Amino acid sequence: MTLTHEQAVDRGTTGEPLGALFDPRSVAVVGASENPRKWGYWLARGALAGAERREVYLVNRRGTALLGSRSWPSLADLPAAPELVVVATPPGEVRREVELGLAAGAKCFVVITAGVGEPASQRDELELAALAAAGGARLLGPNCMGVVDHAAALQLCWGAVPAGQVGLVSQSGNLGLEIGRLLGRAGQGLSRLVSLGNQRDIDAAEALTSLVGHEHTRVIAAYIEDFRDGRRLTAALAAARAAGKPVLLLAPGRSAAAERAARSHTGALVSPLEVVDAAVAEAGALRLDTAGELADTAVMLLAPGGPLTTAGRFAADGRGGHRVAIVADGGGQGVLAAGSLTGAGLSVPALREDTAARLRDLLPAAAGVTNPVDLAGAGESDINSYALVVGALLTAPEADAVLLSGYFGDYGASSPPLAAAEAAVARRLADATAAADRPVVVHSMATTETPALQVLRQHGVPVFDRVEHATAAIGNAARWTALSPAEVPPFASAPPAGDGSYQRTRELLAGYGLSFPPAAFAADADSAAAAAAAIGYPVVLKAMGLAHKTEAGGVALNLGDERSLRAAFDGMRRRTGSGTFAVEAMVRRPGSVELIMGVRQDASFGPVAMVGFGGITAELLADTAIGLAPLTHARARRLLGSLRQAPLLTGWRGAEPIDLDAAAAALVAIAMAGAEHPEYSELEVNPVLTHPGGVTALDAHGVLVDSSDSQEGDHAA
Amino acid sequence: MTLTHEQAVDRGTTGEPLGALFDPRSVAVVGASENPRKWGYWLARGALAGAERREVYLVNRRGTALLGSRSWPSLADLPAAPELVVVATPPGEVRREVELGLAAGAKCFVVITAGVGEPASQRDELELAALAAAGGARLLGPNCMGVVDHAAALQLCWGAVPAGQVGLVSQSGNLGLEIGRLLGRAGQGLSRLVSLGNQRDIDAAEALTSLVGHEHTRVIAAYIEDFRDGRRLTAALAAARAAGKPVLLLAPGRSAAAERAARSHTGALVSPLEVVDAAVAEAGALRLDTAGELADTAVMLLAPGGPLTTAGRFAADGRGGHRVAIVADGGGQGVLAAGSLTGAGLSVPALREDTAARLRDLLPAAAGVTNPVDLAGAGESDINSYALVVGALLTAPEADAVLLSGYFGDYGASSPPLAAAEAAVARRLADATAAADRPVVVHSMATTETPALQVLRQHGVPVFDRVEHATAAIGNAARWTALSPAEVPPFASAPPAGDGSYQRTRELLAGYGLSFPPAAFAADADSAAAAAAAIGYPVVLKAMGLAHKTEAGGVALNLGDERSLRAAFDGMRRRTGSGTFAVEAMVRRPGSVELIMGVRQDASFGPVAMVGFGGITAELLADTAIGLAPLTHARARRLLGSLRQAPLLTGWRGAEPIDLDAAAAALVAIAMAGAEHPEYSELEVNPVLTHPGGVTALDAHGVLVDSSDSQEGDHAA
Repeated sequence: MTLTHEQAVDRGTTGEPLGALFDPRSVAVVGASENPRKWGYWLARGALAGAERREVYLVNRRGTALLGSRSWPSLADLPAAPELVVVATPPGEVRREVELGLAAGAKCFVVITAGVGEPASQRDELELAALAAAGGARLLGPNCMGVVDHAAALQLCWGAVPAGQVGLVSQSGNLGLEIGRLLGRAGQGLSRLVSLGNQRDIDAAEALTSLVGHEHTRVIAAYIEDFRDGRRLTAALAAARAAGKPVLLLAPGRSAAAERAARSHTGALVSPLEVVDAAVAEAGALRLDTAGELADTAVMLLAPGGPLTTAGRFAADGRGGHRVAIVADGGGQGVLAAGSLTGAGLSVPALREDTAARLRDLLPAAAGVTNPVDLAGAGESDINSYALVVGALLTAPEADAVLLSGYFGDYGASSPPLAAAEAAVARRLADATAAADRPVVVHSMATTETPALQVLRQHGVPVFDRVEHATAAIGNAARWTALSPAEVPPFASAPPAGDGSYQRTRELLAGYGLSFPPAAFAADADSAAAAAAAIGYPVVLKAMGLAHKTEAGGVALNLGDERSLRAAFDGMRRRTGSGTFAVEAMVRRPGSVELIMGVRQDASFGPVAMVGFGGITAELLADTAIGLAPLTHARARRLLGSLRQAPLLTGWRGAEPIDLDAAAAALVAIAMAGAEHPEYSELEVNPVLTHPGGVTALDAHGVLVDSSDSQEGDHAA
Repeated sequence: MTLTHEQAVDRGTTGEPLGALFDPRSVAVVGASENPRKWGYWLARGALAGAERREVYLVNRRGTALLGSRSWPSLADLPAAPELVVVATPPGEVRREVELGLAAGAKCFVVITAGVGEPASQRDELELAALAAAGGARLLGPNCMGVVDHAAALQLCWGAVPAGQVGLVSQSGNLGLEIGRLLGRAGQGLSRLVSLGNQRDIDAAEALTSLVGHEHTRVIAAYIEDFRDGRRLTAALAAARAAGKPVLLLAPGRSAAAERAARSHTGALVSPLEVVDAAVAEAGALRLDTAGELADTAVMLLAPGGPLTTAGRFAADGRGGHRVAIVADGGGQGVLAAGSLTGAGLSVPALREDTAARLRDLLPAAAGVTNPVDLAGAGESDINSYALVVGALLTAPEADAVLLSGYFGDYGASSPPLAAAEAAVARRLADATAAADRPVVVHSMATTETPALQVLRQHGVPVFDRVEHATAAIGNAARWTALSPAEVPPFASAPPAGDGSYQRTRELLAGYGLSFPPAAFAADADSAAAAAAAIGYPVVLKAMGLAHKTEAGGVALNLGDERSLRAAFDGMRRRTGSGTFAVEAMVRRPGSVELIMGVRQDASFGPVAMVGFGGITAELLADTAIGLAPLTHARARRLLGSLRQAPLLTGWRGAEPIDLDAAAAALVAIAMAGAEHPEYSELEVNPVLTHPGGVTALDAHGVLVDSSDSQEGDHAA
């Protein structure tokens, strides 16, 4: 049902893929109204606001004049083709309007109506999208809150949306509105808003892609519940990163309730949040938790001297802008700002002696010229102190950003005669930040919007009313700067090779280069003994065909001679009733560390590789890392290095380091096996014995798609 | 210099300890002024506002009328004794004014001036406090921002402070102001403000204690950098808890910068944040990160149906109010609210079928009647839906609180004709929450203060402009409810018994009941062999008198016979040059788990006990728990149970549980040894071998106060 991007490009009428959506030559509003409590009013009003740029046709059954403009009784009556048709009628009338629109030559539909059909049904929605596609038209919705493109004077939504540099794609109309408001309060706004609704044609990935090339969009924001083809979506995120545009993503997850709600809202299958996070981070984007955090971060990213306006100063020395100098009016605010910055993953470095000396010249003796700088009343005595001190820190080499926390911005309210002087200082701060190419971030106690704060916002300087908003925003901007997008190698499905048995899973993985101990499979004690003799004692004996072989007594370790092997064999056959047994070399390596490696098929994101520490505390500590499969060797090493207990791999307390390259190669092999063999919903090797000499896989566990569990190969070694 | 609480009580003049500070019969303002840019103006104005309740004497060198009131040229000229004297003069004049005040009969001084003496010095400040004490008077400051007591019509500070139910003690004037403003914006305010300044007499603990019995204070807030006598402070926190008053504490820490700043600001020695957190939690109080979080939490605690207004419903079933039902205007906001609540440690339970059925009757078919409830436009169609749905959830048994997130509160702004109807719904919400004795918390997208929001705030219903503020506030309120204050047993210093040697440390700990393996000390190989024979092989040999005996080759484990003992002895003596050796039984216990236990002297909080997991990953995982020493047995068990890897102690994966009571008893013993022997700055036992049969201490390490390291007993077993 969904059109490919290429098809969409072919259909573009104004030179960009979704031109008919974002900048149509003409627009028709079906259901136009003069009643401000109706959608038809806001759509008509918004459409008319763009009347200088395009033809606007209001369609209203009565065909009378509306909002000072004429209307037509039906799409069939229009004097020319409407390139875009917006539909806000009862569900039962939507299909008829789309048919009329197609007949009139429409190239795109925006369906506000919450459903299609009487009663509304998913089938009717899918049929509608097919109808539009067959007629060569695109469709946004149904159940969407419209579309806005400020540069194209297109405003087809409820209410008004502040204009700015943030392009927003939202699967929730209300959240889109909330984000718009939060940005507006911060002096920012939206360049473009795409409310996705039920995504029956235009979906999140395509809408995101439309923002990558949109010159008026510098930061991209998105709320997505239903990732669908996660790889297509991450490709869009990666394209945005490559274009230097941060993507800030809100997504459900973290709780059963959030997943329940998302399912209830859009019927989406929710990927585990850690998978979303891994995919998003690999694509160089940020996943955030709330609309407020998103708006704050967008404003910070767009700040003068911030990550988008600098040739690298914010990310100086690969630090990702994380060294922050604090200027506070009192010691307490400085102390809490420092704690909050640290909590946000930033550093508050001590000032160099020459910087401290410059500050000493500017400030009274009681001031603190460490970092945080404590103005100790200097700002109240001379409001220029703010500009002088911040200016000195902006040019100091030890800080990537300056956070000003306290009174500034409030003088104009608490001492109105100071308003003009304060605004002048604000202007100096804005000039200084631009000149230094480093951001100044202001936390102001002001409760009203003073001229100084207006000046700051006009110049894009981020102003927050809580210090924790400022520190989180700086932290997120630094995180975005520091992300290094991962390359995900291409892959294609190989012919299915798995049957879920231990033997086949082992062979499959060995075929990808994973190293297993020598093994043979035997049905009776004599062949087991012969195999053991060939392999060499001590050996391990495992019973095949059991769901949980360790618990069933189906594993015997360290059998040193034929007598113990035969005894184990007899006992095991009796206990388990198994007909096949694996005889394997018993592997013991000094200095070894047990890891778990695996790969799983995610409903949205496809194969996802996992590596973690094994042993008895694996479950307790959940020290794992994940990445989209397949993995490059470099990415596999990064995943290993990201584990909390990674120092155990590299020579902890004088131990010999394990062979990290071999461990990474094993992970690469398992990840590729999972990627090329989607018949396995899950492949896991536990433990992977990593040691100074290499890597040995001591077991293998595979779950076939549509089987609730494998028959063999559980987690026992 | 500091007066005891009892002395303060003796000096109280109006029936409460600090009555002369909070509700004096008369007040003199020294340095009164008509210039609004001077402290003397705000102090005079504030003092005059209480003129109906007390005599107000303005003191100004010129002795002319000020602010419509007469003034006197000097404290010496007053017609009667001023009970409280506020001083805002240059530093060089402070002492003279205090002398004049004492001569005039003053009982308390508030010194705003940032220092005392010319130039200002700490010695002069201490002398000033001594002078006041000798004259039978109390002193707040110097370098404080004043004192406010709304019920007593006392307002001696800069600007205006909104009145409310939160008592605030702050070591930072600006933070006090910021907290006051944040509370004011939320419709709350301060009952009392005590700005501590340099705490030369009245300190944080005494100021906090004054709030415990203050009937107009229901929640206590504090910003403290310098904990001084931490035990006295925690006693004040515990007294507040016992009185049912939450204490919300801001404190520095978490980063080197915060500690550097606090030192620079007040010269305070900063306790590690984990010690502060343990002490605060044990006293039943909450440590928070920022002023905003504090204000939000205070409003939440004071909410109708919240922890302070309920006989236990918020804490129903011991859940601490953690089950939250969400009502959102759209799916997206519900989803993000659910994620944010989960992140704040709360649960978003599925609704019972009968509750869902009630909601189905109230809502259109498209609405989601799971939790989060998705109104899906019902609120826009009929604004009463908000009251109906929230009302249904307030009486549902599965939720302790209801979070309403979205448009509500904005109708009055976006659709002014709806303002009155919306305010009426707000009133119904307020009534419903009071009737149900459960809190409703509102996150509103409104950007202006509509009548509905005013109604909510007037009734104490918490209203937040970001969902993360709402969820953090509910989470903190639930945390406070769930805290169970710990009893810290009394203790007194025993005669010093330590000399830092392994032998003495071992004997000391054994004397407290800690179980060590049999050991003997020997200076030559023959006596070592004799000792080993008596103890029984295998044995461990340790060289004494070394800073790091393992690294120096001063430990030999598992010596099985006399020959290996003698060989080890000779080699060890040669390597280490040591003259004394310990011979100990080699202990091996199946199913044992290695723990670390210790106790340290904190500069503010005294002895602090620590327990954690040992082994090679101890440092990496830092899986530790701490508590003020000494410990009760119950508290020791709780600390053990709070470790991340605690399941390893209680029979993980079918293992036999270790003897938890013996482990707790060992921790109690070590904690008491540290408490009673402050000559040790640190005592540590690593490892403590815990096993199903009991506990064995395999080493002991003691650091004497004023020694940079011990000579013996490092971390090796």
